[in-house]
Amino acid sequence: MKIFAYGIREDEKTSLENWEQANPNVEVGYTDKTLTPETADLANGASGVVTLQTTPYDRESLEKLNNLGIKNISIRNVGYDNFDFNDLKDFDMKLSNVPVYSPNAIAEHAVLMVGRLLRRIPEVDKKFDNGDFTWAPTIGKEYREQTVGVIGTGHIGRVAIQMLQGFGAKVIAYDVYHNDSIEKQGLYVDTLDELYAQSDVITLHVPLTSDNAYMIDDNAIAKMKDGVYLINCARGELISNDALIRGLDSGKIAGAGLDVLDHENNVFGKNWGSIEKLPDPIIKNIAERENVILTPHNAFYTETAVRNMIEVSFDSNKDLIEGKIPDTLVFSKK
Amino acid sequence: MKIFAYGIREDEKTSLENWEQANPNVEVGYTDKTLTPETADLANGASGVVTLQTTPYDRESLEKLNNLGIKNISIRNVGYDNFDFNDLKDFDMKLSNVPVYSPNAIAEHAVLMVGRLLRRIPEVDKKFDNGDFTWAPTIGKEYREQTVGVIGTGHIGRVAIQMLQGFGAKVIAYDVYHNDSIEKQGLYVDTLDELYAQSDVITLHVPLTSDNAYMIDDNAIAKMKDGVYLINCARGELISNDALIRGLDSGKIAGAGLDVLDHENNVFGKNWGSIEKLPDPIIKNIAERENVILTPHNAFYTETAVRNMIEVSFDSNKDLIEGKIPDTLVFSKK
Repeated sequence: MKIFAYGIREDEKTSLENWEQANPNVEVGYTDKTLTPETADLANGASGVVTLQTTPYDRESLEKLNNLGIKNISIRNVGYDNFDFNDLKDFDMKLSNVPVYSPNAIAEHAVLMVGRLLRRIPEVDKKFDNGDFTWAPTIGKEYREQTVGVIGTGHIGRVAIQMLQGFGAKVIAYDVYHNDSIEKQGLYVDTLDELYAQSDVITLHVPLTSDNAYMIDDNAIAKMKDGVYLINCARGELISNDALIRGLDSGKIAGAGLDVLDHENNVFGKNWGSIEKLPDPIIKNIAERENVILTPHNAFYTETAVRNMIEVSFDSNKDLIEGKIPDTLVFSKK
Repeated sequence: MKIFAYGIREDEKTSLENWEQANPNVEVGYTDKTLTPETADLANGASGVVTLQTTPYDRESLEKLNNLGIKNISIRNVGYDNFDFNDLKDFDMKLSNVPVYSPNAIAEHAVLMVGRLLRRIPEVDKKFDNGDFTWAPTIGKEYREQTVGVIGTGHIGRVAIQMLQGFGAKVIAYDVYHNDSIEKQGLYVDTLDELYAQSDVITLHVPLTSDNAYMIDDNAIAKMKDGVYLINCARGELISNDALIRGLDSGKIAGAGLDVLDHENNVFGKNWGSIEKLPDPIIKNIAERENVILTPHNAFYTETAVRNMIEVSFDSNKDLIEGKIPDTLVFSKK
C-alpha cells in the first residue's frame, strides 16, 4: 500500500517519519508542492493522497488522480470548502479531514493575546527596544479583574474557559448549543446582547456559518462596554474590518488580538519585507496600530497540532484504502 | 490628622484620591520627590509618612522627621532593607510595610513569559515587524506538553501553579516549607535536583535569603534538562548572570524570561535611548538575545497592585497614628 502526500513542510517531516516507522507496511511518498494538474502525476502508484492547501482543489487535478486509480483523499486540516463535492461524487472519491488537532494551541494563543493586551506588552516591548527601562505609563490590568465573554463553547472555547479561569477571570459564555459542563457552571448568558453588555474582553470561538458572517459589526460593537478588548482566533469573516477600525479609532475598542482577518489571504502566508508594503490598505491600517496584536493565522501552529494533523490524516487515509470508514469521513458517495 | 506621602507617581493618584474620599477625617499631602534630608521638611504638620523608594532611608532624613514629631512610617512595598533599624530604634519610630499587594500580578507575568517563550512570540513579533506573515519556522510548543517546576510555593508560587494548571501543564514544586493544598495535590518533589532533572520549564518564586543567593549557578544548570526554559520574577540575585549566559550560549537553556537581574539597578528605572547604550556589558549581553524576554522589574505593575499598595500603606499609617498595631507592622521599639 502506498500513500502520497502533498504540501509537506519541513516542520511536518519528523511526525511523518514517525508515522512511517509505526506503519512499516505502508510506503509513503511526498512533495512540498501542492496538488495541481501539474503535480497530480507524482501520486502515480499510490492508493490514497494526503493533502493540505488553501487554494482550490480543481476538477482537473482530481480527474488526474482518478485516472491513476486514486479514490481516497485525506486533508490534514479541518476545512474542506476548497473542494467541489460534485467533483468528488463524479469520481466516486472519499474525503476525510482532521476535525480536531489541538484545541489547546488555538485557545492558548487567544488567552495569551488577552494577557498581552491587558499587560500592555506591545508597548512595554517597544519601550524595551528603545532602551526605556521605566515602569510608567505602561501599567497593566489583571485577568482576575476582567469579565471575559467567550462566544462559542466547542472544543476550543471550553479549553479557553479553563485557561481563563486558571487566571481567576470571571467567564461568561454564549452558544446556541449548550455544553453540559459549561451549563453546570452557570456560565451561559441568554443572548449575545447580554454578553456584549457585561464583557471587558470578548473572544470568538465559533465556526463561520451563513448566519454569523460579520456578526461583529457597528451595531454589535455599539452594545459593548467602552474600552472592550476583542480577540478573534476563529474566522476573519466574523468581524467587519471597517467596523473594527471605527471602534479602534473612537477608543470604544481598547485593543484587539487577531489571528484571522477578513480578506487575510491578501496578506497572510507571504513575506512582504515590511508592514509598509502590505498591499491591502485596510489590513495595513489594522496592522500598524500599537493596540492591535496581529498574527498570520498561526494560532494552531504547534508541534502537538502538526503531529496530530499528520497522524490523523494518514491514519484516516490508511483506513479509507483498507475499506474502513474512519470517524473523520467528510464525503462518500454511498 | 495628617499623612504626608513621598514618591507619589501619576498612576497612584486615582487610588490616593479614592483613599482620601473614604477617609475624610485625614488630611493627605504628597510629593513626587523621594524622602531625603532636602525633602523631609515637606512633611511638616503630619503625624505619619507614607513612602516608597529603592534608595537608602538615611539617618539624617529620619532625624529631620523626628524633629517634626513624626514617629510613624509606612512603606508602600514589601522590602525594608533600605532602613537601618538602629535609626528607627534611636528615634523610637514604628515602621509598617505592604507584605502582599498582588500575587496575581507577578504570577501572571511569569506564566505569560512561559507562553511567550514556548510559542516563540519574540521571533513571531520580529517577523511581523518585517512584514513576514509566514508560519515556518516559528512553530510553538504547548503548555500542556511541559513539566513546569515551580520553586517556592508562597502566595505567588501557588497562584502561578493555578494558572499553569489551567493551561494543562504538569506542575511539580519545591519548597522547604510545604503548603497543605500543594501537598494534597502531590506536587512536591523532595529535592531541587529532582525538580531540575524533570522540568522543561523552571520558574522561581522564592524570596532572597542568605542561603539561596546564586542558587542557579553552573552546577544547578548542569543538572537541568537540555533546552530548559528559565523564568525569574523573584529576585535577580537568585541567578548568576555569568552562568545564565554560559547556559544560553551552549543551548542548554533554550530561553529565559527575566523580570529581575543581578545588578539590575545598573540599568532598570532609566531610559537609555537604546539597548546599545546600556552601561552594563553583562546585562547588555543578556538583553540583546532573541530568546530572552527582559522586563524592568515591572511584573508587579498593575492597577490592582498599585491600588492595594496605596490602600494598605495608608490604612497602616492611620492605624499607627491612632496607636493601633496593624498586621503590617515591621518594626516597633516596644
